[in-house]
Amino acid sequence: MGYLQKRIEADGIIYPGNVLKIDSFLNHQIDPKVMKEIEAEFYDYFKDRKVTKVLTVEASGIAPAIMVAAHFDVPMLFAKKARPATLKAEDAFVTDVYSYTKKITSKVMVNKAYLTADDSVLIIDDFLANGEASLGLVDIVRQAGAKVAGVGICVEKSFQPGRGRLEEAGLDVYSIVRIEAIDSENQRITFKEGH
Amino acid sequence: MGYLQKRIEADGIIYPGNVLKIDSFLNHQIDPKVMKEIEAEFYDYFKDRKVTKVLTVEASGIAPAIMVAAHFDVPMLFAKKARPATLKAEDAFVTDVYSYTKKITSKVMVNKAYLTADDSVLIIDDFLANGEASLGLVDIVRQAGAKVAGVGICVEKSFQPGRGRLEEAGLDVYSIVRIEAIDSENQRITFKEGH
Repeated sequence: MGYLQKRIEADGIIYPGNVLKIDSFLNHQIDPKVMKEIEAEFYDYFKDRKVTKVLTVEASGIAPAIMVAAHFDVPMLFAKKARPATLKAEDAFVTDVYSYTKKITSKVMVNKAYLTADDSVLIIDDFLANGEASLGLVDIVRQAGAKVAGVGICVEKSFQPGRGRLEEAGLDVYSIVRIEAIDSENQRITFKEGH
Repeated sequence: MGYLQKRIEADGIIYPGNVLKIDSFLNHQIDPKVMKEIEAEFYDYFKDRKVTKVLTVEASGIAPAIMVAAHFDVPMLFAKKARPATLKAEDAFVTDVYSYTKKITSKVMVNKAYLTADDSVLIIDDFLANGEASLGLVDIVRQAGAKVAGVGICVEKSFQPGRGRLEEAGLDVYSIVRIEAIDSENQRITFKEGH
């Protein structure tokens, strides 16, 4: 069992409605040991994909993404949720991301200068549930005419449709930890084998 | 001359009104070589301060902060701009941060569980201009009864009051690169000696 899974078992907090909170080590406070496990494991899996860039979306994808990018020694790029004053609308690749939690659609964007048709892009995110954020990033990569080298996820909720949607889109997904079920009544997490 | 300064000279874009854009390597696309220089230099300067935690604010502080935290092998914590549904108001340290660019005051917050009076906190941010974000983080650390070990800044605009305000508050500030002046008319950046 990996270190991230151990920390989820030890320190994950389950809220009513099968909500898992792991912000003591992944997405508010961040344990560098989790990051080091992630960067090594993603590197090992994706190392033959000629990765030229790592892409994520702000804010909680940034920490794992920069660690992975540093391991590959390639630039990391994070999609922004608001357009900076210095970025004209026509100079950005923009896509819509629907949030099932907040029930709103918002835009995320990347400066066109930083993705080209020659790029082989590894997409990294902290969570995969419905797959909206990852699919938005895939859309941005494809707008640039670039290739998606793969999708690396820290924690996958395998009982939600995100992974299936990404695989249907022809993508290779690797998740460090896969969660089969969250049972808030009995305060139990069931993990799924494989990545 | 360090690598970050070289990249600013080579790739920084100066906009009218003395605005410097360095988002091709620091805060949208991120060059891992910049991060590796930063983490080594901050470690070297702050290594005797018994740092127990690295603190920043989302989003563009996260990449340098996690790299520094990994180097120190301590947790990184980023202040959030919106309160997650699972965090009650009374469980958060909250402070106001005024943005001179956007002319609005917004709140940033940290879960009280992740900062204690025993912590010695290194504050990291990508930019220092008026010092509002860093002073907000200092306020959060002090609300927790913790100690600020120091403030590490990637790029300081030395012609703005941020550094002076932090030093007046009794803080030790170390900046990788200090910018004395940005001259948009002549497209010239003048750097300041020292850190």
